[in-house]
Amino acid sequence: MADQINKTDVSELGEFGLIDKLTGAVSLRNKSSKIGIGDDAAVIDTGNEKYTLVSTDMLVEGVHFNMMYVPLKHLGYKAVVVNLSDIYSMNGTPKQITVSIAVSNRYTVEALEELYKGVNLACERYGVDLVGGDTTSSVSGLVISITAIGEVEKDKLVCRSGAKENDLICVSGDLGSAYLGLQLLEREKEVYKVNPNMKPDFSGYDYLLERQLKPEARNDVIEELKKQYIKPTAMIDISDGLSSELHHVCLSSNTGCKIFEEKLPIDSVSISLCEEFNLEPAVSALNGGEDYELLFTVPLEAHEKIKKNVSISVIGHMCEKSEGLSLIGKSGGVVSLKARGWNHQSDAD
Amino acid sequence: MADQINKTDVSELGEFGLIDKLTGAVSLRNKSSKIGIGDDAAVIDTGNEKYTLVSTDMLVEGVHFNMMYVPLKHLGYKAVVVNLSDIYSMNGTPKQITVSIAVSNRYTVEALEELYKGVNLACERYGVDLVGGDTTSSVSGLVISITAIGEVEKDKLVCRSGAKENDLICVSGDLGSAYLGLQLLEREKEVYKVNPNMKPDFSGYDYLLERQLKPEARNDVIEELKKQYIKPTAMIDISDGLSSELHHVCLSSNTGCKIFEEKLPIDSVSISLCEEFNLEPAVSALNGGEDYELLFTVPLEAHEKIKKNVSISVIGHMCEKSEGLSLIGKSGGVVSLKARGWNHQSDAD
Repeated sequence: MADQINKTDVSELGEFGLIDKLTGAVSLRNKSSKIGIGDDAAVIDTGNEKYTLVSTDMLVEGVHFNMMYVPLKHLGYKAVVVNLSDIYSMNGTPKQITVSIAVSNRYTVEALEELYKGVNLACERYGVDLVGGDTTSSVSGLVISITAIGEVEKDKLVCRSGAKENDLICVSGDLGSAYLGLQLLEREKEVYKVNPNMKPDFSGYDYLLERQLKPEARNDVIEELKKQYIKPTAMIDISDGLSSELHHVCLSSNTGCKIFEEKLPIDSVSISLCEEFNLEPAVSALNGGEDYELLFTVPLEAHEKIKKNVSISVIGHMCEKSEGLSLIGKSGGVVSLKARGWNHQSDAD
Repeated sequence: MADQINKTDVSELGEFGLIDKLTGAVSLRNKSSKIGIGDDAAVIDTGNEKYTLVSTDMLVEGVHFNMMYVPLKHLGYKAVVVNLSDIYSMNGTPKQITVSIAVSNRYTVEALEELYKGVNLACERYGVDLVGGDTTSSVSGLVISITAIGEVEKDKLVCRSGAKENDLICVSGDLGSAYLGLQLLEREKEVYKVNPNMKPDFSGYDYLLERQLKPEARNDVIEELKKQYIKPTAMIDISDGLSSELHHVCLSSNTGCKIFEEKLPIDSVSISLCEEFNLEPAVSALNGGEDYELLFTVPLEAHEKIKKNVSISVIGHMCEKSEGLSLIGKSGGVVSLKARGWNHQSDAD
């Protein structure tokens, strides 16, 4: 029998399976490499009283964004914000970014200037410096790769792995709205394809579009928690959907969790659109993705303090690993939480 | 008259013009951002006795590499090395890298494992840690974006801007061979297209292929210079061709330069292939690119010491800015050096 060459499709493993497969055997040889792959940012100990944090993200045209409805300035802004969000979710402060782009000849200098206007606006808004990057041509479309560098005082670092049984599970802001904003844009794209003279109808849904097109990182939440002297035990930003992030935190912290459907923070505009689209609001909150809110855990004792924080919702609590990850429905039914996540396919449902 | 929308083609500006246009107005707001865009790596002052260095590069299929002749393991290795080279050229030591990839469904898990074998091999060889990254799908082809993080003692930092009039201009290794390796691969590709049964003929040219497919970063040169107590006044790695890099150093250092054709280090194998291809060896040395050798300047007093270093060639000296950048030909003729550089088009000549 001839040798067989294995050909495994990437989709069989999924993003996280693939990362495990490619980097699972990586060991850290430098003393300065404190935390490597497996958290929102890598942690580097430069021998200073602060750790250096490094996070990186790649956005690909046709996968993460569609030029039909994403203004370039917004895209530049969002590309920066999603990276900063990873630094904040380690309880850190971003300081620098590098921005690399690959562009096809379809993009004019003026178009790229728009993109960089958004990049610079985000830098200004979050107080970070654009310190480097790479500019190259691509065969098709636009690819943006950003690396964010930040810092955190050593005793303030928060990882995914610190959650304990009985810790409260908290999320900032509301969930699902960025995903619903995307659904809305996709619907209007389809309408436009059929009849290019139709004006897109976004009335009343500005909030959802903004959540999708121009998200903000929750540095305000990080600041507020510091003022309240609350240090989360674990933290992660919600980029792939609450459900997926809970799986990451539970896996890293070696716990299970229970969350309550009725506690999920969902905006009224999101609920309206869900009715129109015949979607379950809880499903978009759990699996939507791109919210860039913070998911974190705090000790039970912090309950009184955290209640006062209007941007925060307590949605459940951590439990023993053996109890698994579950959602308690409004009627009391219990369902197991699936790490469905969000594959950043704009046509995924 | 209706408003006119400006549409400037990116090619009108070229890579460096585009970078200037997009990032020219960027100012640094954080005290820790010591040096931003415009050197091989950004320099960050974390308040430590060492600076943190950050460099990033993006490689795009069909632009920087052709899967027809680049083995994936080599590609992974090279993608890491070109980034480390930027850290060494600041006289620093790389410690960590992040690797982000966007891949189309044409790539199997096994193919990506090959790519990461190369990444890990380079990490091992150069003592760096893979600490993070991003893995995503692409619409077409493969994109690799790597960020390297390193460190340098504050008083050891070498930038592009420190060269002085009369400083000696030095290069490590030999020049032009990586470019010639690429020409060879391109020729055999064309032969293969015409007749897929033809075996590629690389006999005697292994060195050139290795220079193109598996370059090494010159950390050995950095180490040797340290042992000799020579601190370069300016340094840059030769990724876009000697001519282009000299322009960067002269511009940053506010000087001109004179280099001598007869001093250019060109390997005998390169000269043979140039004869076969009817190319001028000096042209491939000046404009070839992808050599990843170091170009640096040292004070005149270092001449005796540097002569002892067999990996180094002194090719000329810096001069007053008003004298411009010139090449003294073998017959004594003087030509002005053009910043032609290398646009990483595999089909460029």
